Amino acid sequence: MTEVKTNQLGENKVTAMEKNFSQWKAQCLNKMDLSKKGIVDRHIEHVVSLLNDTDEFFTTSSCSGRIILIDRTPQSDVQKKNCIWLFVSHKKCTSDDLMTGLAKSSRDAVLKFEPFVLHVQCRRLEDAQLMHAVAVNSGFRNSGLTVSKTGKIITAVRGTHSLEVPLSHNGKLLAGFEYISFLTDIANQKMEENLKRIQRFYQNIESALMAQKLQFPDLPSPGDPQHLPNRLSNGKGAERETSVYKRRRKREHQTDCCHGDESSSVQELGDCLDLFT
Amino acid sequence: MTEVKTNQLGENKVTAMEKNFSQWKAQCLNKMDLSKKGIVDRHIEHVVSLLNDTDEFFTTSSCSGRIILIDRTPQSDVQKKNCIWLFVSHKKCTSDDLMTGLAKSSRDAVLKFEPFVLHVQCRRLEDAQLMHAVAVNSGFRNSGLTVSKTGKIITAVRGTHSLEVPLSHNGKLLAGFEYISFLTDIANQKMEENLKRIQRFYQNIESALMAQKLQFPDLPSPGDPQHLPNRLSNGKGAERETSVYKRRRKREHQTDCCHGDESSSVQELGDCLDLFT
Repeated sequence: MTEVKTNQLGENKVTAMEKNFSQWKAQCLNKMDLSKKGIVDRHIEHVVSLLNDTDEFFTTSSCSGRIILIDRTPQSDVQKKNCIWLFVSHKKCTSDDLMTGLAKSSRDAVLKFEPFVLHVQCRRLEDAQLMHAVAVNSGFRNSGLTVSKTGKIITAVRGTHSLEVPLSHNGKLLAGFEYISFLTDIANQKMEENLKRIQRFYQNIESALMAQKLQFPDLPSPGDPQHLPNRLSNGKGAERETSVYKRRRKREHQTDCCHGDESSSVQELGDCLDLFT
Repeated sequence: MTEVKTNQLGENKVTAMEKNFSQWKAQCLNKMDLSKKGIVDRHIEHVVSLLNDTDEFFTTSSCSGRIILIDRTPQSDVQKKNCIWLFVSHKKCTSDDLMTGLAKSSRDAVLKFEPFVLHVQCRRLEDAQLMHAVAVNSGFRNSGLTVSKTGKIITAVRGTHSLEVPLSHNGKLLAGFEYISFLTDIANQKMEENLKRIQRFYQNIESALMAQKLQFPDLPSPGDPQHLPNRLSNGKGAERETSVYKRRRKREHQTDCCHGDESSSVQELGDCLDLFT
């Protein structure tokens, strides 16, 4: 064993992580949903089910994307501290919905579109890499991994498709109906694009699982009750995906004006998407 | 060696990664800066220098944060494709700056505040975990890791402190001077908060490197010409940070309305920040 590997996770930790994953998954899926809404959003039920039916993944939190109008103290650094929700919708809305919400504002109201977000706990680092590649390739370009001390490996699937428009100050509306109507259209377009990306994400996960199945035909399908924890632990993990991720999207990178080799970020993404090709 | 480790990175790959890191770093730092601006933003020169003077890290791209006014085709999915920059500033701006920029709009102008973003290539996974913990603890809550097929481990440091306000449609301005003036104040406040977080990030990195130095007093300081590639490769990597990350911030989570155990996201972050305590 190389020193590097010892440092990266530690032998005991790796074993513990493998054992812990199944326990964590069982605990998480048996727990009550403590979110405000209390259930998985309708638009992503199929994504959550697909992932929770595998042995490599389970979801720890999710939001399909929402149009939200919040009222908060001016200059509040912490965006959701002491803020009131004037309106929230996980589907398209109307200008009247927003005007009705805005009428209740007594502080600073802000209209936001928050795209799909999903936290997926992954059995192993290679599973997290795969999930990350699928997420980025589906348009969720702010996705990234977290590896905790206790061995939890989580891929956060995050989009960049947002909107954040201040609309009132100390309860005084700063925009007219025409502008609110224009914003409603934009928020609804973002919602539509967001749902397309979720669908693309779902199809890409399905394809990845299918490619895996084709490569290892003796393995059960996702959701099959047969236990599959080691089905990919044959040392060929890095080869298991074939053509699924060959279509790439160039990242329109946030840093294109600043320090950096213009190609490096795309290269970075290319590497990432190329993980299993 | 466990099967899991073979799958995670592969013995040859790990060795190659360790060797490659120094080569990648040398290549990257010797390359011409191909970004539009061509130099590192003034506000983050000290952060970039601090990281590039270590043996565990180097930066591949960065932007200190900017107020930007872009003009793009309506309903363009790809935000930066075929868009024109009407105005960009890496420091505070005035309403007149924005009004002058808006006067040039012929399509759909959007005012954005884009916070600090930094891509840091890391020698080992534990270095990336540390960088991620520092980033999140400094307020950059959308940070995450990428692990590529070729062994590049990159922590993307990303904030959530954004603004995205559509302001014209087909060249027609949709808002008055009073509203633009209000938005200018908000964008400038976000710029100020962003700079505070960069400073906090810088101090937290310094503290982390100092804690490491205190724990291994025979080791040279960051920036010391003495070569340090294996200074933490003694199997104690996971113990090297002591009290630096004990102060935690609860994440005001994007998914607090939706599916999820309310505590799980905070727990996830807690684990992350707790990495080296």
